[in-house]
Amino acid sequence: MHSERTAGDEGEDSVIKAMIARGKSIARQQIGPRIAARRPRRVDLPLKHWGLSVGPNGHLHSGAVDLVELAQREGTPLHVASAVRLDANATAALGPLRAGRGADIFYSYKTNPVPTSLERLHRNGIGAEVISPYELWLAFALGVPPDRIIYNGPAKSKASLREAIERRILLINANSVRDAQSIAAVAAEVGTVANLGLRVSLRQTWGGQFGITSSSPVLIDTIRAALEDPHVELRGLHVHRGSTVRTMRTWDGYIDEILECCDTIRAATGWSPSILDVGGSLACPTVDKFDTVAFRLNRAYGSDLLPPDPAACLTIAEASARVAERVHDHFTAAHVPVPTVVQEPGRSLTGDTQLLLTTVLDVKLDGRLPHAVLDAGINVAEAARNEYHQLFSASAPTSPPVRSYRLAGPICTPADVLYNNWRLPELEPGHVLAIMDSGAYFVPFSTTFSFPPAPVVLQDGDEIHRARDRLRFEDLVAADHFTGHTPGA
Amino acid sequence: MHSERTAGDEGEDSVIKAMIARGKSIARQQIGPRIAARRPRRVDLPLKHWGLSVGPNGHLHSGAVDLVELAQREGTPLHVASAVRLDANATAALGPLRAGRGADIFYSYKTNPVPTSLERLHRNGIGAEVISPYELWLAFALGVPPDRIIYNGPAKSKASLREAIERRILLINANSVRDAQSIAAVAAEVGTVANLGLRVSLRQTWGGQFGITSSSPVLIDTIRAALEDPHVELRGLHVHRGSTVRTMRTWDGYIDEILECCDTIRAATGWSPSILDVGGSLACPTVDKFDTVAFRLNRAYGSDLLPPDPAACLTIAEASARVAERVHDHFTAAHVPVPTVVQEPGRSLTGDTQLLLTTVLDVKLDGRLPHAVLDAGINVAEAARNEYHQLFSASAPTSPPVRSYRLAGPICTPADVLYNNWRLPELEPGHVLAIMDSGAYFVPFSTTFSFPPAPVVLQDGDEIHRARDRLRFEDLVAADHFTGHTPGA
Repeated sequence: MHSERTAGDEGEDSVIKAMIARGKSIARQQIGPRIAARRPRRVDLPLKHWGLSVGPNGHLHSGAVDLVELAQREGTPLHVASAVRLDANATAALGPLRAGRGADIFYSYKTNPVPTSLERLHRNGIGAEVISPYELWLAFALGVPPDRIIYNGPAKSKASLREAIERRILLINANSVRDAQSIAAVAAEVGTVANLGLRVSLRQTWGGQFGITSSSPVLIDTIRAALEDPHVELRGLHVHRGSTVRTMRTWDGYIDEILECCDTIRAATGWSPSILDVGGSLACPTVDKFDTVAFRLNRAYGSDLLPPDPAACLTIAEASARVAERVHDHFTAAHVPVPTVVQEPGRSLTGDTQLLLTTVLDVKLDGRLPHAVLDAGINVAEAARNEYHQLFSASAPTSPPVRSYRLAGPICTPADVLYNNWRLPELEPGHVLAIMDSGAYFVPFSTTFSFPPAPVVLQDGDEIHRARDRLRFEDLVAADHFTGHTPGA
Repeated sequence: MHSERTAGDEGEDSVIKAMIARGKSIARQQIGPRIAARRPRRVDLPLKHWGLSVGPNGHLHSGAVDLVELAQREGTPLHVASAVRLDANATAALGPLRAGRGADIFYSYKTNPVPTSLERLHRNGIGAEVISPYELWLAFALGVPPDRIIYNGPAKSKASLREAIERRILLINANSVRDAQSIAAVAAEVGTVANLGLRVSLRQTWGGQFGITSSSPVLIDTIRAALEDPHVELRGLHVHRGSTVRTMRTWDGYIDEILECCDTIRAATGWSPSILDVGGSLACPTVDKFDTVAFRLNRAYGSDLLPPDPAACLTIAEASARVAERVHDHFTAAHVPVPTVVQEPGRSLTGDTQLLLTTVLDVKLDGRLPHAVLDAGINVAEAARNEYHQLFSASAPTSPPVRSYRLAGPICTPADVLYNNWRLPELEPGHVLAIMDSGAYFVPFSTTFSFPPAPVVLQDGDEIHRARDRLRFEDLVAADHFTGHTPGA
């Protein structure tokens, strides 16, 4: 501590900042508009991808359900989950496994922790991948059998470990050396044997707080310690790539590194996993992170942001078949027992099984760019800021996109913008919009910033069932202590 | 729609990206470390700023309360609000008003909507500034008198407008032309007169979805329409700067533009507000947004991020006295009735009245940088990613900062990092840390991502009162419909 200078006082920074500002100014005035003008225009993804259609009254329909009527009846913002799509995605994902040549599937609870939808997945044979004491509790509350639960994450409580061990869930993946030691210690206390896995971080995967670094000598030490510990059965090796995978080429490169890691570990310790948990990270076909340059051109100059090509996206079934086949061939060639392969998909399994209905509250035309204020903002749909989420007008799905709007949410910050510059049909207050693919990371990242969270309904055939009720204002302060009396009132 | 190209297919982008990547690589290897090495080291802000001290047992104390013991007893993450600091901040803010030369103060509910703390502010004479139907309901539930409530925001429901008008709250600020029309229409339905204000956006303020653009002719049209409407009394002009104000110079420049806007409107319409609502935007003295360059140097090379200078920060009282004096002088000179001036502080009033206790769950030393996993992450403390929030070890407040840590939260995303590179005493699992200034935007931006939200206690003198209870796991699914039975279980 040699100096008492505080922030905002650095001459060197000012020079750098001035240079950056000058460069940005040139780009903004000269290069940007030229590049933007040459960019292609958006072609919306087809309604049929989600089983949507235009009804006889000109509204957007999901099967026989009029989404405008549904929005008006139930209120918005409103998530609409689809039982048909949950069933279809689960069935497709489990196909290779049922054909005898695929990976087992455990759904990543954190992605969309809506109990109704989770139960639907479990009914189809999908297991539970949980990352917190709450999620473990939820899996048990939903009646998931212990051997269909995998417990991950960097923040397992001792009480949750005790329950996981006592009920002998399929696998507890230790995130670190210390986590492995805690699991063993709790198993010793309980006087039983825990089903242990070790999460390792590879060159291609998330590292940082996640997993034991595969190149670190502590990995080998930890494996040896686990093999000698009578209170753990070292079953699993766990990896999770993190960055989204869209192509078989990327997937194959990832499998290469996993198999290499298995070989290295076996050479050093003689140990080979009986469960190889390759994590999640597969993409939702209709969602893709925005490219930074394209995002900025859209925001500044109104050039379109383009949808990904769903047909070019690797499916869970394709990834499952490939990883199972390659693991089988690799371990067989080395004369080592072939491990069970496990995948933990999140967004690829449920992203496109849910949509979010929102209502236009206001249209402002007095500024530089037309603004529409929606009743859904970053409080319920933050992911739509950074990713392509197909947007349909449920009120006027066939009207041509004649105007560019900035679509803002209801909370009082300029950061509450879901679409910066989006060509849409003429909007009016009362119009209902459908933001597609709200089945991944919309619900868990939602807040109660000034508004209650969005409820969820499940569409099963042509019936609508309540899944998560709209909270009353009273519910938002149910845990609060207050008198309700302001002196002087 | 002329093209069917989809994202990820643009040659021009690749060239730009390659150039950017090359520039970044040079900066990373050569320029960055040199700049980082020359930056000053952090001097922590003093404990006494918050009334904290080191107790006889070496733990951090707030008055007589041992914060480590409190964390262990109540569990973490845990917000600790301070009644003394709420009272002191409210009293200081209202000082100029009580001396007859200051602005009235309405607290921005959205900043920290914890009922116990809101009641404490109201008991000190602070009014309520609400931006949603829920917040309006909450102000009434806390017994705030209607003439101490201002209703803002772009998303007012018709039902909430009806209640606000029937109970005749002090001011309803219309966010747009259409909002003004809705307020008038509801007042006509109710058969009464609404107290209307108009939010305008100026050159220096947030625009976009907020307010009627002051340079647009629709502003004058809207004022004329309101003046002719028997169902509204046009009382207020509302502006809100948005970008944080730390200095009198910035504040004066902002007042200049507000007074100019009043003059322009008066010249065009003859109307002058009886309430001049200048909004919020004053800084919390000990919190400041990180400079982008400094943030990146910290993340990449470990140079320190520096605290702001609290003594150099404009206070609510100073801002209040100045705006009231300038408004008085300006309107008096023009022989126009002097309006009541109103401020709507948020972070400047409560930011430093609350702290967040969190426990170290794990310390990982096998990677490039030591990582500590905390039980508080972006789920409860997202603001700490982007702003300086003083961090103290409650377990070892006097130990020297011997090691740089990356402090990660408990949720499974690499984005869950609160401090990228922070020099701290040697950390051990079980250590308690105090993240200061959690009284602005921690609570409203918190999520239930895999973990229940953080409860709140209020320290009043040496007593600890429950303010917001910790939710049980059951509470998180209280609004959900599920069977609890998985077939095959």
